[in-house]
Amino acid sequence: MSQPGDIAVALVHHPVLNRLGESSTTAITSMDVHDFARTCAFYDAAPVYMVHPAEGMHAMVNDICDHWLRGAGGERNPGRREVLSRVRLLHSLGQAREDAPYKLWYTSASSPQEALRDIETLCNESGPHLIVFGTGSGLDAVKLPSPNGWLRPIEGIGKVRHLSVRAALAIYMDRCRRGER
Amino acid sequence: MSQPGDIAVALVHHPVLNRLGESSTTAITSMDVHDFARTCAFYDAAPVYMVHPAEGMHAMVNDICDHWLRGAGGERNPGRREVLSRVRLLHSLGQAREDAPYKLWYTSASSPQEALRDIETLCNESGPHLIVFGTGSGLDAVKLPSPNGWLRPIEGIGKVRHLSVRAALAIYMDRCRRGER
Repeated sequence: MSQPGDIAVALVHHPVLNRLGESSTTAITSMDVHDFARTCAFYDAAPVYMVHPAEGMHAMVNDICDHWLRGAGGERNPGRREVLSRVRLLHSLGQAREDAPYKLWYTSASSPQEALRDIETLCNESGPHLIVFGTGSGLDAVKLPSPNGWLRPIEGIGKVRHLSVRAALAIYMDRCRRGER
Repeated sequence: MSQPGDIAVALVHHPVLNRLGESSTTAITSMDVHDFARTCAFYDAAPVYMVHPAEGMHAMVNDICDHWLRGAGGERNPGRREVLSRVRLLHSLGQAREDAPYKLWYTSASSPQEALRDIETLCNESGPHLIVFGTGSGLDAVKLPSPNGWLRPIEGIGKVRHLSVRAALAIYMDRCRRGER
């Protein structure tokens, strides 16, 4: 069984695919920083890696986090200090393995041509696990390290195929923690 | 068993509580409009009611939706047109019952002093159901219509008690659709 802390999460902004299927880079949004950190704090997952090659994006995230960790935000809302203390910046996903010998699990809104893992069973296996989400139109997997596997996509029942990455994270974390024995 | 379309969702911006427990009003954010509509489209819930008393907020949401329903956004991304076609604006939550004889189910991050319903079983009952979320520090229930009941809060395992309302919606909808028989 995995222990709290055995699950880490990464949100990748490069390399990801754009709408045309080309390799691309997206901007980090403050909403993603907050929502990813909040959901991970709620389910006790850490760290929350924000992956972006540009120094300017790192500076923006550091400014946001400083406001809550060391500035006025954290005095007004100490819970948010706890939340944002989980955020770590990386220039590339591969750097995460300098922190811990993570097993890498990639996510996709469409079914990749791979054997798929259910997150409910994954969370019963010893980690540390790193669950990796892509922004844009998803991870550009051929330019990323080979993963241990892919998580089964979340299936909807409506006509629309893509959840927001914020919603997908919340659902995976809920399923993970409910599946734990 | 509920049919697709038997579940509607409302996001209330007034009356809600502020951090001090006072009755308050929040601003609608474009991110909430998109994330609520996307998650509901993915799980085939509709309508998505955005509840706010101010005309200016209605105008902002109408501008956002027009861009995707009738403007350049929908040409570039037809899926987003399907998503945002679900959005309905209300000045007060009570107006929703002019659309349909909804059963009202309120949500809270903390356990209300009420009998709690599990969303997994709720979704097997005939509707129409309206699942109601509050912004700010939650619904100011004493100023809202009496609900049929309250949904059981989503329980985390970390130190942090509050998910974002976007994450909470995603988790409830996933549990609802997975609980259906």
